[in-house]
Amino acid sequence: MSIPNHFELLATDNQARTGRLTTPHGVVRTPAFMPVGTAGAMKGMHWREVRDAGSDIVLGNTYHLMLRPGAERIAALGGLQAFTGWNGPMLTDSGGFQVMSLSDLRKVKEEAVTFRSHIDGAMVELSPERSIEVQRLLGSDIAMQMDECVRLPAPPGDIDRAMQLSLRWAERSKRAFETAPDGHMLFGIVQGGDVPQLRHTSAQNLVDIGFHGYAVGGLAVGEPQEVMLAMIEETAPHLPRERPRYLMGVGTPDDILEAVARGIDMFDCVMPTRNGRHGMAFTRYGQINLRNARHADDPRPLDDTSSWPSAHGYSRAYLHHLVRSGETLGAMLLSEINIAYYQHLMNEIRQAIAQGSFASFCERTRREWQQGDITAR
Amino acid sequence: MSIPNHFELLATDNQARTGRLTTPHGVVRTPAFMPVGTAGAMKGMHWREVRDAGSDIVLGNTYHLMLRPGAERIAALGGLQAFTGWNGPMLTDSGGFQVMSLSDLRKVKEEAVTFRSHIDGAMVELSPERSIEVQRLLGSDIAMQMDECVRLPAPPGDIDRAMQLSLRWAERSKRAFETAPDGHMLFGIVQGGDVPQLRHTSAQNLVDIGFHGYAVGGLAVGEPQEVMLAMIEETAPHLPRERPRYLMGVGTPDDILEAVARGIDMFDCVMPTRNGRHGMAFTRYGQINLRNARHADDPRPLDDTSSWPSAHGYSRAYLHHLVRSGETLGAMLLSEINIAYYQHLMNEIRQAIAQGSFASFCERTRREWQQGDITAR
Repeated sequence: MSIPNHFELLATDNQARTGRLTTPHGVVRTPAFMPVGTAGAMKGMHWREVRDAGSDIVLGNTYHLMLRPGAERIAALGGLQAFTGWNGPMLTDSGGFQVMSLSDLRKVKEEAVTFRSHIDGAMVELSPERSIEVQRLLGSDIAMQMDECVRLPAPPGDIDRAMQLSLRWAERSKRAFETAPDGHMLFGIVQGGDVPQLRHTSAQNLVDIGFHGYAVGGLAVGEPQEVMLAMIEETAPHLPRERPRYLMGVGTPDDILEAVARGIDMFDCVMPTRNGRHGMAFTRYGQINLRNARHADDPRPLDDTSSWPSAHGYSRAYLHHLVRSGETLGAMLLSEINIAYYQHLMNEIRQAIAQGSFASFCERTRREWQQGDITAR
Repeated sequence: MSIPNHFELLATDNQARTGRLTTPHGVVRTPAFMPVGTAGAMKGMHWREVRDAGSDIVLGNTYHLMLRPGAERIAALGGLQAFTGWNGPMLTDSGGFQVMSLSDLRKVKEEAVTFRSHIDGAMVELSPERSIEVQRLLGSDIAMQMDECVRLPAPPGDIDRAMQLSLRWAERSKRAFETAPDGHMLFGIVQGGDVPQLRHTSAQNLVDIGFHGYAVGGLAVGEPQEVMLAMIEETAPHLPRERPRYLMGVGTPDDILEAVARGIDMFDCVMPTRNGRHGMAFTRYGQINLRNARHADDPRPLDDTSSWPSAHGYSRAYLHHLVRSGETLGAMLLSEINIAYYQHLMNEIRQAIAQGSFASFCERTRREWQQGDITAR
């Protein structure tokens, strides 16, 4: 049975790839970074800013949305795009990861996961079928299979058991997705922790089942960067070249460069908005901590080469003041500055790959990060 | 000695007035509502939204800004407008009111007020001269004299003492302001609590001293609306017709209609942003509490007659979800919706006065408020 392919590879540069993923709500340029709009909102940002910053697609968390306001309610209100006003492509996770990280009293069984809601304490059951049902109620363009993600380091036996369970859930997820409307996609998730052989098995079995795209899961969960990169290298060759590849929950700008160099097309991470709320700015000269007293009298903008208005329109002194005073505007400005930096980086990555100059682009970008922030005068 | 007058009365309708106040940073249309940007930021709003919502002028709090980031620092960074990026007219209060309401261990003496900073516990002295110095360092377009504001109800003896002290401080404030650049303004503040005779005395003495404009202070501090309105009626006839009149810290939309009808030109209040942060929306059909469960499934916008995008572009169900989930975006959207409602109201007030139809405008507006919110279907 053939699975329609909505991904078009436009150019490659060694393992790095640039392309277009066509969803029911629009086209996603890859490599793509997906800002995380956890509970139907991007923390501290208007949707128009998310869009203006260059985001083609955002991620919504099934776990949060199914608990509040509820999937059936969102469906009755026209789906997540109509509900939130974000009218572009949206990927939803399966909910499984947050069940593991946010709820207590969870029980993982073959049939389903049972957990206690962190909002009202109610006991909730999430099966692969229910996860797909919820994601379809949300109206997600790209749904994810339910999987079990093991925090590293972990005994290989545990990693194997979770990977095998995830494969059985992958089959059930795919069956549940069969009646989804044309154009909507389901991605399988490669598990296998830091064990190369388990990664191979997981990838090969998922490809046999057949998905619109493939994610690399179970990384960025505590392991060193080199382990993460090694696992991508173990996984990517087993995935079909013509399908999109999504590295879940990653990462720093450097993680993104490294993963793109290994053939990854899609990313999501809370880092730009979360770090923004804590006074950290991402810039072409690396991260800047605006709580630092050295910014208190500095009239210069964060980055006068940035095309993003807030990155060149406000002084470091003002941003420092907002962060120190706990003003919401500080979190708002740094969140949009960081998302804009990430999307600017993705745009440059796409251009460099198209021009066949990705390696020299990475070298120049890393040199600027390492150069570090200009010192206060 | 004649004080330049930067206020132009364009039309009157009974006691209601509409005009233009020209400041170094631009023209203020009156009656004007000044959103409060306490510590150099409007809580939950970008400055461009404050402007787009129709605000001509905003208020900055001297008390907050002198403690953090400090007046000398802001001056070195080009003044409050350059520092914040709000490039329009700005009025600053004297700091006296917040000394009374926010700090402990305060001592009011003839020479100055001494208080403990609520930020770092340092002892700080604020005299009328220092207050003017701070306001000039901030680069304020309209500075306020330092005064002592007594919370009502209070014994007439206390009110009298504070009013007399405020008059002596008014003279000192004016002397300190003498070297201010052309175009900048200083307003005197009428005190006298709820005692008509003291209001007369205060107003007459201030007019004898001579200011660019006059504020009515010491109201909206716990007294019933009818007492506030009676005190405006006792005060306004003693103020020069050709000068702007500012009612400090007021108020609800209804307070504004009533005060405009009694000859007030300027207002400031934290209510639209503070209530917005608590899930309350101001609309033409009155206040709406979006925490209320009846909004959970309601697809309708807050007000489809509003020209403000967020007031007609988001469902009540979404706003309810954001408020219940504690998402920053909820506070952001409701703050801008409320400021936009206030500024829309001010615009309609100005037009009605210019057309000589202010009374019928008030009647229609109150009828709509009293009609109440449409019920959920």
